[in-house]
Amino acid sequence: MTTPDAAHAVGIDLGGTQIKGVLVDRSGGVLRRELRPTTDDGDLRSFVRTIRALADELGNGMPVGLSAPGLVRPDRRAIAWMRGRLHGLEGLDWTDSLERGQLVPVTNDAHAALLGEVWQGAARGLKDVAMFTLGTGVGGAIMVDGHLLRGHIGRAGHIGHICVDRYSPTVSIADMPGALECLIGNYNIRERTGDRFETTHALIEAYRERDPVAYRLWLESVQALAVTIASLINVVDPEAVIIGGGIAQAGEALFEPLRKAMKDYEWLPFGEPVKLLPATLGEWAGAIGAAGEALASPSPSSSSS
Amino acid sequence: MTTPDAAHAVGIDLGGTQIKGVLVDRSGGVLRRELRPTTDDGDLRSFVRTIRALADELGNGMPVGLSAPGLVRPDRRAIAWMRGRLHGLEGLDWTDSLERGQLVPVTNDAHAALLGEVWQGAARGLKDVAMFTLGTGVGGAIMVDGHLLRGHIGRAGHIGHICVDRYSPTVSIADMPGALECLIGNYNIRERTGDRFETTHALIEAYRERDPVAYRLWLESVQALAVTIASLINVVDPEAVIIGGGIAQAGEALFEPLRKAMKDYEWLPFGEPVKLLPATLGEWAGAIGAAGEALASPSPSSSSS
Repeated sequence: MTTPDAAHAVGIDLGGTQIKGVLVDRSGGVLRRELRPTTDDGDLRSFVRTIRALADELGNGMPVGLSAPGLVRPDRRAIAWMRGRLHGLEGLDWTDSLERGQLVPVTNDAHAALLGEVWQGAARGLKDVAMFTLGTGVGGAIMVDGHLLRGHIGRAGHIGHICVDRYSPTVSIADMPGALECLIGNYNIRERTGDRFETTHALIEAYRERDPVAYRLWLESVQALAVTIASLINVVDPEAVIIGGGIAQAGEALFEPLRKAMKDYEWLPFGEPVKLLPATLGEWAGAIGAAGEALASPSPSSSSS
Repeated sequence: MTTPDAAHAVGIDLGGTQIKGVLVDRSGGVLRRELRPTTDDGDLRSFVRTIRALADELGNGMPVGLSAPGLVRPDRRAIAWMRGRLHGLEGLDWTDSLERGQLVPVTNDAHAALLGEVWQGAARGLKDVAMFTLGTGVGGAIMVDGHLLRGHIGRAGHIGHICVDRYSPTVSIADMPGALECLIGNYNIRERTGDRFETTHALIEAYRERDPVAYRLWLESVQALAVTIASLINVVDPEAVIIGGGIAQAGEALFEPLRKAMKDYEWLPFGEPVKLLPATLGEWAGAIGAAGEALASPSPSSSSS
């Protein structure tokens, strides 16, 4: 097993539809990016072979880090709990499966995205920072004093499952009524808009064109996001909040009304609002963060020297 | 300045109506407790003299830690922001004022209460734990992996200012609509109950006697607490949640409906609910936690040896 000084590492992000792989150097520069479709034929062995081939192709013998949805086992070798398409990966030990001769650290995908943004993106150099990932659902992650909050069972950072509307009949997959995810996630956009909009993208386009229904609906979603961010600020008190995910690509159609709504809800004891920053690594943040975790993991060569 | 090996320390908790002082030994045993009224004659010097006399009486020359409401300055020598009766203490440097020859660490009162409960109370030995203090308002504190979350400007743990009812007309002092504090804090119990109940204690008494209006009102408050605890669990993922403050003295009239409501809202990926524990140090938790911080602060004798 050639584990040189780990000048490079591979990061692999397992998503429900795509697998993303990157090769990065120690300074965080991305040397190569690869995409593969997520196969769903129920054949776990063939899936693992695909991942292993991708890892070898990107950097044979180099440290590998893995990012995936779900709750990570405390020893970081597996996902302990995962719903949806990748459910079959629960309990799979990636360190054994990829035979790298050293830990293949597994990181929750939203956690990995924040680690990526802190290392190379919008949150570079920050130590107290929270991230919201607005997409099909709403993911999140929190860093405090330079340490990622993982939590007692790996559940920390599930910001999308904060309740902001306690009597709402809409309940999130984590059993929470009126959760942020139910109010801005793309997964229920049709129900939420009375079948008027198929996607959040379409809703935002109509908002831009000043469609009055879209205007009301989008600002209701933005309001839910604002009260959640303000609540989170009161709980963990970050210096910045990063907003990423597909919906964040709306740019000022999101950030302009969001900043305005924050003025109503953010507690400003010293007058300074917390910075709201768009994520900059896009869909590659998780893979980059996972690679960073591989570089940070102790290598067998350094521990045996 | 006699700073022996700091086998003992003094903890002082500055409250709006009372000042509590304790002398503790290194193992956390409380050797002495003292109460003084909080004077409010606007004379800062005389107030500081009172605190200093109390500290000397409890343990002349011993390390002192201070607990107080408000946001603590990053150097921990002063409260940087405080509303209400003790507003005049903003910026007062307690290390200079008490002339102890070493840092007098200042800790937010809710933070100090959690530190006390972790050291000597309900949370003994726990590393991932959150605390709610239910009283006039709702205070809180969070410990992650053995570290208290203080936050970027000392604001972390303001759990009472999580929004759970985003369109509520009732707004907390931290500008948050439908905040937990507005729904269970004692400060607005009259407005909240249409002048039917003067105190939360009276509301709970009527609930115990199966008064139907009290029943509905109290369970609405408990529901707000349950969704907030469940939200917080999704965000920081503790192993236990401690509930203290005057309202928590209701015992099973609080905990029985609370546990029941948690079943509707808590996400249980592995089937195990987070433990809900009543605080055990009562109103002395803050002073004991402050004393612990003084014992943990570097003493000049040890640093110069």
